[in-house]
Amino acid sequence: MELANDKHYLALCGGVGGAKLALGLAHCLPPQSLTIAVNIGDNFEHLGLPIWPDIDTVSYTLAGLANPEQGWGRQAETWQVMDELKRLGAPDWFALGDKDIALHLHRKHLLEQGNTAAEATQLINQALGVTHTVLPISNQTISTKVHTDIGTLEFQEYFVKERAQPKLLGLDYVGAKSAQLLPQVESLLGDPSLTGIIICPSNPYLSIGPMLAISGLKAKLARSNAPVLAVSPIIGGQAIKGPTAKIMTELKVTPCATLIADLYAGFVDITIIDETDRALVSIKPLIKATPTLMMNLFEKKRLAVECIKTLDGFRDE
Amino acid sequence: MELANDKHYLALCGGVGGAKLALGLAHCLPPQSLTIAVNIGDNFEHLGLPIWPDIDTVSYTLAGLANPEQGWGRQAETWQVMDELKRLGAPDWFALGDKDIALHLHRKHLLEQGNTAAEATQLINQALGVTHTVLPISNQTISTKVHTDIGTLEFQEYFVKERAQPKLLGLDYVGAKSAQLLPQVESLLGDPSLTGIIICPSNPYLSIGPMLAISGLKAKLARSNAPVLAVSPIIGGQAIKGPTAKIMTELKVTPCATLIADLYAGFVDITIIDETDRALVSIKPLIKATPTLMMNLFEKKRLAVECIKTLDGFRDE
Repeated sequence: MELANDKHYLALCGGVGGAKLALGLAHCLPPQSLTIAVNIGDNFEHLGLPIWPDIDTVSYTLAGLANPEQGWGRQAETWQVMDELKRLGAPDWFALGDKDIALHLHRKHLLEQGNTAAEATQLINQALGVTHTVLPISNQTISTKVHTDIGTLEFQEYFVKERAQPKLLGLDYVGAKSAQLLPQVESLLGDPSLTGIIICPSNPYLSIGPMLAISGLKAKLARSNAPVLAVSPIIGGQAIKGPTAKIMTELKVTPCATLIADLYAGFVDITIIDETDRALVSIKPLIKATPTLMMNLFEKKRLAVECIKTLDGFRDE
Repeated sequence: MELANDKHYLALCGGVGGAKLALGLAHCLPPQSLTIAVNIGDNFEHLGLPIWPDIDTVSYTLAGLANPEQGWGRQAETWQVMDELKRLGAPDWFALGDKDIALHLHRKHLLEQGNTAAEATQLINQALGVTHTVLPISNQTISTKVHTDIGTLEFQEYFVKERAQPKLLGLDYVGAKSAQLLPQVESLLGDPSLTGIIICPSNPYLSIGPMLAISGLKAKLARSNAPVLAVSPIIGGQAIKGPTAKIMTELKVTPCATLIADLYAGFVDITIIDETDRALVSIKPLIKATPTLMMNLFEKKRLAVECIKTLDGFRDE
């Protein structure tokens, strides 16, 4: 399914789950018809390296370089640097493959040369052979802080070092209020010819939340001419990937396929839930059911086509 | 040859040539009897990493981890990160092995944690299994700038990127005037029980020069109770390693075995030149000839013993 060049879709995307749908969309849309804006809330600096996990996961996935078993990092990765870091007694809780380290070093160099986060991301994507546009949601910094029963942690400390074990008491998206929406994304949202907006099935608190916390983004989504579609990451009361369900329980929210219809109320026009949860389908708010599990490329493309068709149908009504 | 514990020698040392004698000294003296203070003028930041070539060469050499063919870097090194950096289009003129990168990342982390340059160096040496004390000559920064016919270059740009090809017009040791001599080294120099000081056969302009440019160091060497011995890096009008002879020609200095006796006049008591240059031996200034080529451990130890004996003999006179 190749769309006419005059169509353009914007996807908001976190890491693993979001990257799957982004790959499906990239297989259905030509490069000039898709912009993928990615979460930056889990970016952090470690050993002096700028580590941007969600952006790299999307880039690696689109470049066909991602490690499909792990859900993060590179295929055919090696661990020479990490082995030596362990020997030297350096912190080793965040696994950094050699190819990953090369990318982080290169990004650091690009940033030090004066490139913005978006420019650095685009230069890296060109080098990786990614033809679709992948952008950070902002050129500024947003840092997700996790308040837990063992104290306030950086997101990666919570998620990787502590393996999301501590009880989550609350979240702060530090910097989000003052961060500016990336000009390219802002301009797309204001463009009357934008065809549709897709919020990928990423964790609403950890991946989409930091983006939505940017001042004005929710209003811009609501005001956009383009319909906004969100894909639920919850199937049958379970999150597909990561600690979404655990976090929801701790935040005293019932993990339910239609939760994001509530969370995103006011700016989302259509919510897609899994076939399994068809009983929750409704007309207002518009909730549709379709297979959302993306275990292979066929399923990723199928969901992408469903999102595009649904958006086009909504617009044409 | 193991000396009594109440003896203590200080060596001033650059990279490759200096590290050879440092290894010889470390084989002759117990850890508590030797301090090796190393040049920092060729330290630089590259891809955001703090790269300290002379210190690492000395540490790797003493740890038995140096690559003997190359004269720099590690044995059994791998190049995974560098290969990926090249693929990404990052600057690749400075070859960084994976083990080397791990060490630079760890050093960066130690410095960011608030360790001084000396503390970071000692922590790394402990991790590498170096038992003798290796220290930077200062906790501050000295940056050797090379004025050439193609402009002013950072030392590593001149030495590695441009392969020491541009014509050298002059040198500046930026930061040396305001850099403080490392307190441990200063205290050794003022200690009446210091047994001897050895200036290793390193390039006098590129390796020893940046150290001697630190305010007061020459005077402290001259005032020290301990005799000061320098080993000439020039044999038969040729430098053993690196571009010393080329630089001297460009600086309109005749490469001569006794040159360092002139350069270091005022604070050096004894100069050791190679057997080949025996004709240049003199009593005042005291110049001795002995085999100085260090092609293997035996020759390194032989020269180290000769330095120690000469210093002890001078002191006992």
